Amino acid sequence: MVSKRMNKVNNIWGNQAVFITIEGIDGSGKTTQVQKLYERFLAAGKPCIMTREPGGTPVGDAIRALLLSPEMDMNSYTEMFLYAASRAEHVKQIILPALEKGINVICDRFVDASIAYQGYGLQPEGMTPELVRMVNETAVAGVFPDLTIIIDVEVSVAEQRIGQRFAQLQQNIDRIERRGSAFYERVRQGLKALYELEPERYLWVDGTRSSEELTERIWQAVTQL
Amino acid sequence: MVSKRMNKVNNIWGNQAVFITIEGIDGSGKTTQVQKLYERFLAAGKPCIMTREPGGTPVGDAIRALLLSPEMDMNSYTEMFLYAASRAEHVKQIILPALEKGINVICDRFVDASIAYQGYGLQPEGMTPELVRMVNETAVAGVFPDLTIIIDVEVSVAEQRIGQRFAQLQQNIDRIERRGSAFYERVRQGLKALYELEPERYLWVDGTRSSEELTERIWQAVTQL
Repeated sequence: MVSKRMNKVNNIWGNQAVFITIEGIDGSGKTTQVQKLYERFLAAGKPCIMTREPGGTPVGDAIRALLLSPEMDMNSYTEMFLYAASRAEHVKQIILPALEKGINVICDRFVDASIAYQGYGLQPEGMTPELVRMVNETAVAGVFPDLTIIIDVEVSVAEQRIGQRFAQLQQNIDRIERRGSAFYERVRQGLKALYELEPERYLWVDGTRSSEELTERIWQAVTQL
Repeated sequence: MVSKRMNKVNNIWGNQAVFITIEGIDGSGKTTQVQKLYERFLAAGKPCIMTREPGGTPVGDAIRALLLSPEMDMNSYTEMFLYAASRAEHVKQIILPALEKGINVICDRFVDASIAYQGYGLQPEGMTPELVRMVNETAVAGVFPDLTIIIDVEVSVAEQRIGQRFAQLQQNIDRIERRGSAFYERVRQGLKALYELEPERYLWVDGTRSSEELTERIWQAVTQL
């Protein structure tokens, strides 16, 4: 098994590129921070890409369409493997080639999201965090983030934010987002459990702070890598 | 881990239904024997279904279309996970419900096919039999065959048979079948290795025998279950 830590010292790419993932439940403000972090990298003159699954790969796009189709019924194992398939392609086509060229990568959700959403969130359907971790660690084939930022907000806060977004989107709620607040509570607790297991791998931030404060704190942690 | 053997004695379904899989390289005559075995079950008054992935599940059909699309490029990990996703759905939607109702199931290819085709066949692309086995044993969630029949033919014999079929199909060769004879040789040796690892789980038959002889030998083994 390849080491999970690939910081500057033992970076297999032999350069300064770092791989950062940002996690949080829907409505945590995660996507805003991905964008802000990306801008900070560019402002500092560091090459950077921001990406999220399926990352624009043709097979990933096809898998995503399947996963988000409300009329496509599937069991949680199938869902887990489809995410893993998309991730394997995303890593090989997008993330790894960028890192190999010395380009920093910010990814909006990665393996931790799967463990939290599927492993913890779908525990009542028989999934386990260990199983989801094992399958996803296979999928990424050794490409693990140097730092993962978890933006934590209470589910009630996230729901309020999401409610507004959903009202705008007018019922455009996909299969994943239809799950209720008990599901999101399990996901949030899952992220917490992942953090507590390996705190040195994560930056845990309070998502109710101002967007500017969050960006500052995240950039500080990134520059320390 | 659930036991791999689920014969009549420790059948979790508490009935006489058996789950049989038939394996062999393309051109081994496998599909003919699936059909003949199915007819034998029905002639003996035993309820039976024959199936193959994706088994007619909507999500399985969508995955299959992706896998067989010649223009859809993907890495071998993604391919492995897509097969696993399709298999998880096939097991939960088709195979397990049938067995639970006491209906015998004959499946044209299953986990062994993945281990042979991907684990052994794609070893030059970095796959390993152990990895493919682990992922697929997760996908089937404890539903393992009571008996697996391997129909063995030399690659040259299979190619001759396939060549005729391909001529009829006029270039309708999918992504999987485009692989050359070195690939098929690895697959054949892979099936052999699987057999040698656990001979009690398999019936190994010589695919150059007459179709009638093969059916007789297979039916004999099935009735001994």
